Amino acid sequence: MSKKPKQHPTALHEKEGVSDSEITNTSAINSIKSKRQSQPTTDDLVNAILKGDITALSRAITLVESTNPQHLQKANAIIKQCLPHANKSVRIGITGVPGVGKSTFIEAFGTHLTHLGKKVAVLAVDPSSSLTKGSILGDKTRMEDLVKDKNAFIRPSASGTSLGGVARKTRESIILCEAAGFDTIIIETVGVGQSETAVHSMVDFFLLLQLAGAGDELQGIKRGIIEMADAIAINKADGDNLKKAKLAKVEFNRALHMYPAKDSGWQPKVMLCSALNEDGISEIWELIETYISEAKNNTFFEQKRNEQNKFWLLQTIDDRLKSDFYNASEIKKELSNQLALIESGKTTPFAAAEYLLKLND
Amino acid sequence: MSKKPKQHPTALHEKEGVSDSEITNTSAINSIKSKRQSQPTTDDLVNAILKGDITALSRAITLVESTNPQHLQKANAIIKQCLPHANKSVRIGITGVPGVGKSTFIEAFGTHLTHLGKKVAVLAVDPSSSLTKGSILGDKTRMEDLVKDKNAFIRPSASGTSLGGVARKTRESIILCEAAGFDTIIIETVGVGQSETAVHSMVDFFLLLQLAGAGDELQGIKRGIIEMADAIAINKADGDNLKKAKLAKVEFNRALHMYPAKDSGWQPKVMLCSALNEDGISEIWELIETYISEAKNNTFFEQKRNEQNKFWLLQTIDDRLKSDFYNASEIKKELSNQLALIESGKTTPFAAAEYLLKLND
Repeated sequence: MSKKPKQHPTALHEKEGVSDSEITNTSAINSIKSKRQSQPTTDDLVNAILKGDITALSRAITLVESTNPQHLQKANAIIKQCLPHANKSVRIGITGVPGVGKSTFIEAFGTHLTHLGKKVAVLAVDPSSSLTKGSILGDKTRMEDLVKDKNAFIRPSASGTSLGGVARKTRESIILCEAAGFDTIIIETVGVGQSETAVHSMVDFFLLLQLAGAGDELQGIKRGIIEMADAIAINKADGDNLKKAKLAKVEFNRALHMYPAKDSGWQPKVMLCSALNEDGISEIWELIETYISEAKNNTFFEQKRNEQNKFWLLQTIDDRLKSDFYNASEIKKELSNQLALIESGKTTPFAAAEYLLKLND
Repeated sequence: MSKKPKQHPTALHEKEGVSDSEITNTSAINSIKSKRQSQPTTDDLVNAILKGDITALSRAITLVESTNPQHLQKANAIIKQCLPHANKSVRIGITGVPGVGKSTFIEAFGTHLTHLGKKVAVLAVDPSSSLTKGSILGDKTRMEDLVKDKNAFIRPSASGTSLGGVARKTRESIILCEAAGFDTIIIETVGVGQSETAVHSMVDFFLLLQLAGAGDELQGIKRGIIEMADAIAINKADGDNLKKAKLAKVEFNRALHMYPAKDSGWQPKVMLCSALNEDGISEIWELIETYISEAKNNTFFEQKRNEQNKFWLLQTIDDRLKSDFYNASEIKKELSNQLALIESGKTTPFAAAEYLLKLND
């Protein structure tokens, strides 16, 4: 039995349209039309980016971050033209749990670099940002000086719930920033998830920010992050905290020595700093410069970038193969059934996999 | 211009066949035929396995390890019937670098368990064994007592170059061993590769064997293995080595405390043992029993097995999606071209991935 909508009179009436309003402002319409037409072409954007135009760079990144297929096509064309001008920067990953002082550190670190004549781009990878509305870098006011610095470019994390998607966007944004002349790229991420692995695989140097704790130094840091670090900087090493920070440095050094040597031959270092007082910042940059120069000399730098590229190629393919499979409607329907059968011991994971793969054929 | 084969006489001649040899031994033929017919059916094998028949168990595992599709079909049918009788054992993973004394340890540990009335199955995951012809468990003579023990079953690693394949076979063999009444399953692996992760995801308890070294204790152990360990046993803690082993215990304990707490709430322990002198073996088993009883009480045991099953379902699907993709002939041909284009900066990993995925559509 279908319910028939009631036909009683309502307070809402639709008025007949006016065929041609006399109050139409022709000049306003023309202005809008001309603005629409003035959307820059791919070539316009590329030329402007190569000249270091920040507005063009922002626009291109917006295209990279778009979900509109036409925008993505345009983004791909721009990236392709920018590629020969990219790959010339030092890429630094910075991670640490919330509260460690990442924004203050990046403010101090970035400002130090621009004073040295560097051009610094700060990007972020935070797949949760679409939910929390940008927990990192969302609040640019926390980086007052850097925001105003004409040699710095700050861009909050692309939004998206899939780490793969966010990572792709950030990685392509790096290329655009490099083409725009930024020679130092800082990628910020939070130290609480899988995103460190993604960031680690797109940077040359990975810096972990830590606080001096109470003995249990690694608490709260996801397993494996310590191992990815090329350096650990213990922040807020000032005032009453300095003694504790010095003790923490000893502990971290001991912990780092327990790990086997890195492929690069680099022994990760522990540094103290106070981003608030701008203490220890220049020492950290000198350490990174030493690392980069050693890595370039022993060709590890080049080799790592090649491996990262290969990793991203395979990663992108794997992500797509999986998303295509699990988004197929039959699989969506049957997957939970098979999981229930496994849980009740009626099938094995391998038999269930065979069954699902056949469904998809 | 095609080359025509020369038609000159050769020293090799084919003799005409003899239509019916008089020396054919009819009884021998019948004996072979009857042996062929006597291949046990699926039901025969299942019934025998459930009665604890080791020969039937070995035969079923051989089917699991076969690459013949008919054998695999039979194996799947057997596993399905065995499933309701499986899942009742304690599964223990044991790893350690070559030279740490794994075989001696498993000999002492397994014998200790059979003396307690346990039925012990020892399997191995060693994807390299097809090349090295079974580096682990291949030489059963290293476990003289356990091999002769009627309550023990030892099976070398399945062969195969793909870890995924070897892991699948081992995981299905666990089910068969459990159905045959084995209540303690030991999975051995070498501490030098990805295989620990595979073993870790199929056992309830993961034991890392170590030696007392000279300060640099974790040297040679792949990153992350320490983190997977529920206990570290320092072997060869005897004679002149005892003092060094005790120092190593302190170091390892310190290292373990640097890691965040495990999901299970379990704090990994460091033990000393001398497998050769059978010292410390019963303490390690008591520790495992404590762990299992705690994990069963707080339902972590059940929960972990469910997660492992889900992991294996997804893992099997991912492996197959990838192998289907990368084994497609167009992809094989084009992948290296795309990698070369990436390396020379002419395309991005993402654009190359798109290109390859489209090729495969």
